[in-house]
Order: sequence, then C-alpha cells, then structure tokens
Amino acid sequence: MAAWGERLAGVRGVLLDISGVLYDGGEDGGTPIPGSVEAVARLKRSQLKVRFCTNDSQKSRRELVGLLQRQGFDISEGEVTSPAPATSLILKERGLRPHLLIHDGVRSEFDQIDTSNPNCVVIADAGEGFSYQNMNKAFRVLMDLEKPVLISLGKGRYYKETSGLMLDVGAYMKALEYACGIEAEVVGKPSPEYFQLALKEMGVEAHEAIMIGDDIVGDVGGAQRCGMRALQVRTGKFSRFREGAVLESEPGSKSQPWPRDLKQTPCSRALLSGG
Amino acid sequence: MAAWGERLAGVRGVLLDISGVLYDGGEDGGTPIPGSVEAVARLKRSQLKVRFCTNDSQKSRRELVGLLQRQGFDISEGEVTSPAPATSLILKERGLRPHLLIHDGVRSEFDQIDTSNPNCVVIADAGEGFSYQNMNKAFRVLMDLEKPVLISLGKGRYYKETSGLMLDVGAYMKALEYACGIEAEVVGKPSPEYFQLALKEMGVEAHEAIMIGDDIVGDVGGAQRCGMRALQVRTGKFSRFREGAVLESEPGSKSQPWPRDLKQTPCSRALLSGG
Repeated sequence: MAAWGERLAGVRGVLLDISGVLYDGGEDGGTPIPGSVEAVARLKRSQLKVRFCTNDSQKSRRELVGLLQRQGFDISEGEVTSPAPATSLILKERGLRPHLLIHDGVRSEFDQIDTSNPNCVVIADAGEGFSYQNMNKAFRVLMDLEKPVLISLGKGRYYKETSGLMLDVGAYMKALEYACGIEAEVVGKPSPEYFQLALKEMGVEAHEAIMIGDDIVGDVGGAQRCGMRALQVRTGKFSRFREGAVLESEPGSKSQPWPRDLKQTPCSRALLSGG
Repeated sequence: MAAWGERLAGVRGVLLDISGVLYDGGEDGGTPIPGSVEAVARLKRSQLKVRFCTNDSQKSRRELVGLLQRQGFDISEGEVTSPAPATSLILKERGLRPHLLIHDGVRSEFDQIDTSNPNCVVIADAGEGFSYQNMNKAFRVLMDLEKPVLISLGKGRYYKETSGLMLDVGAYMKALEYACGIEAEVVGKPSPEYFQLALKEMGVEAHEAIMIGDDIVGDVGGAQRCGMRALQVRTGKFSRFREGAVLESEPGSKSQPWPRDLKQTPCSRALLSGG
C-alpha cells in the first residue's frame, strides 16, 4: 500500500482515456462502464486536474462530448484532447491539402481545410469506410506523390465495442505503409508530441501527471516514455490472456468493470478518495 | 553482349510470372501485354523448359489458365505453380481448418478442406472482399485462438490492372499481423519453399533456372536468394520512378510492352532466339 502511495506522490493531474475506460462504444452510442460516471465525478471533486485524452477519430469532439454527457459524464469540449483538431492545425501550419480517408462523424473537424488537388493522405478510424475501394483510392493518391505524406490519427491496433473487438486505424495505416514503402506520421497516443499537447492544455508537467488507459502500448507505454506515470485498467481492450496482469490486484476477468479494478488496488484509494 | 551470354550460360529452365508480365488483369479479364503471346510461343519452341509461377490468388488455376488460353497463350494447368493449391496441401498436411478471407474465384481450390470451427485464417487477394466487416471477422477469429496462425497467399504490395494500381494481399496481411501482434506464414513468392516447389515441378535445379517477373522483391529478390538468376521486365508494376532501372537497356516508359524491353537487351536474344 505504501508503495502505491509513494508512486502517486506529487501527482497533480490525471489524463483519462475515454473508449474502454469510461465507456465501451457501439452502434447505439455505447454504454458507460459501470462505476465510471461516478469515478469521473469524484476525480472532479478532488484537488486533481482532469483532462480527457482520446485517440477517438470517428467522432468530432462535439459529438463525442455530447454522447458522454448523455451517459451522465461530467465533461466538456474544452477538456478533451483529440487527434482530429490536432491534425487540422498541423495541416494548416504545413500547407497540406489532404485526401481524407475518415469517418463521416469527424468530417466537420476538417471543414476549414482545402482538400483540392491533395498532396497528402489523412487516415482516421473510418470503420466501414475502410472498403477496398477507399483504401485503393488513398493508396493511389500516395503513389502519385513524389514524396508521399501519410498522416494517421493514432495507430491503435484495435478497440472494444459492445459487439466485440474492432480493427483500429493502426492496422490500415500499416497496410498503406507497407504498400507504399513509407512511414506514417502519427497524431495521437503514443506520439510524445500528442501527450505534450494534452499536458500543456491541462497545465501540468509530465512528472506531475498520470495517464489512465486500457492500451498497454498507446496509453501506458507512450505516457511513460514522456516521463508520466501510467495505469492500465482491466476494462476495454485489456486482456489478461494477451497482455498479462499490469495492475497489482487479484486476477479478474477481462470484462470486469473499472471501479472494481481500481478498488482492488491501493491505487484506487489514492486516486478516488482524495476529493 | 558477351556479359549477358555468360550470365545466361547453363540456363535450362525459365520461370515466368504471369500478371504484369504476360498480361495486365482487369475486370474484363484483362489484356495480354503486346508481344507476350508470341514470346511464350517462342520460348516453348526452344530447348528451354518453361513453367508459370504466379502469386495470383484471386482465380483458381483452371480459371486463370482458361483466361490466358482465350488470350492466345500456350499454357496448361499442369504448367502453373500457384499459391492456392500449394496452401490447400499445407492445410491438409497440418490438419488446419481455415477461416477463408479469399476471392470467390479461388474458392473451388479449397473445396476439399474442412472449414468448420476454424483454427487458422487463410488470406488471399480478396479484392472487394477486403471489406471492413470481413477483415474484422478474420481478426476476431485470430484473436480467439490461443496460438493464432495466419497464412497469406503471397505478400505482394500491389499489382497493376488495366484500371490502375491495386492493393495486393500483402497490405492486408500486414494489417492483421499488426493488429494481432503475429507474423504470417507466406505461401507464394518470395518464399524460398515456393520457388523450390516450382523448380521441382519443372525438374530444373536453381542454378539452371531464371525467373522473369515485374516485382523486384517478389520475383527478382526472392529468386536470387534461392540461387536462381532473375530478370525484371519493365511492364506491369515496374516503375523507373519507384524502382530505378534494373534491365541493362535504354530508358523506357513504364508502359513499354514486354518484347520491346527484351529486344532492347542482349538477354532477349539469348532467351528468345534459341528455338
């Protein structure tokens, strides 16, 4: 117990992943993970700064926040770091005109971007939009460029929806990388620049922050490489079978809800009882 | 010129790639590359043994050979090494029951294979079959296996059809490899076992054979690693822009037909005037 207390000493800010941590997405909008609404409320009543740091690239920030608010979460647009607005800024700064292989839900984030005569490809979690035809179109745009630029909104391998595991943008990024013999630029976790952006927006230094997520690579590994502390929950895509136990708690099934996991660890007390 | 003669000394057998070398595929069945029908006929009139070694995994051998015969090629089923029948043998030998992510055109090659309760995934050039839904289904089968086995019929990056460049199975293989954290087993060029199979079927040793193809990795590199000689044509997916000149001939456009390329090289005389 003392070990956890020491590990969390000096923490001033909490970065929370959204999908698989607060809720499991799905066609019906998804469902909150039991206890997570209350956990966020308690964090917000505490002295800790809270920011939401997602790789969700299917929805605009407005849509995502509206969905979470309807599920009872205390969250506002200004508290969310998400890859589409970050990418939009980069495109403007570098004068890039993207061919967009993205979900319709996030298209509004690129309303102000010139997409004529494309000189790069932006790929996001397009879901059903990842048809062979659409992938081939993005591939041909890249092959026609002398110096192909591929920007990927995150590089997640997969995520969990209520219907089961879903392939994420990272898989399709790898397909285009391989076909074109190039390397994509990633805007999203685990990119250090992306974590730095979230920390800056929260106003907390890396060594004062902890990342809570379900992805051992995107959330935990990425945050740790930036000098942050990190905690993997056992909900969402977490699987003991695939990744082994990360939390110091008793074994549990991969469908355990979030607060039960945290309550099994001294960490939960440190994080959730301080408010 | 003498250099080419020396390089081809002792060659007894010719392995010919099909797509991009003999013909460019397309929705209408594709079109023969000008001069290639006659080039094959001349090779067959020569003392050289000829075998066709393809990574085509969209069509059964019967369908592929029928299509080429209608275009005027002198070719029979027994002269073709292709990945689907080779995979079918492997599945039987190892008692594997595949979930098939393949094109309907090649499904008949797996007629004798038990596909109930799958314990592996076989992926081929599925074309439009590479929908998000189908990819996700294959992904979930792999993730449900304790030791996921993914068999890929070739690992080509792309190929050329009359309508333009098309993503090949290798891109989708990479997507599943990344998502599952596994490495696929490849049945097809440039796998050494596959070239050995083709050589055995032709009855020629590696040092006595030359591979003619349009893919610098799958055809040329793979054959050379097996101890064969290799020649890259300037048709099909060949692009000076992307791969530089490989043949020792004058610069030509990437849409140059096959015999013109070969006629520009001393190699063509060695190969095509011997009959």
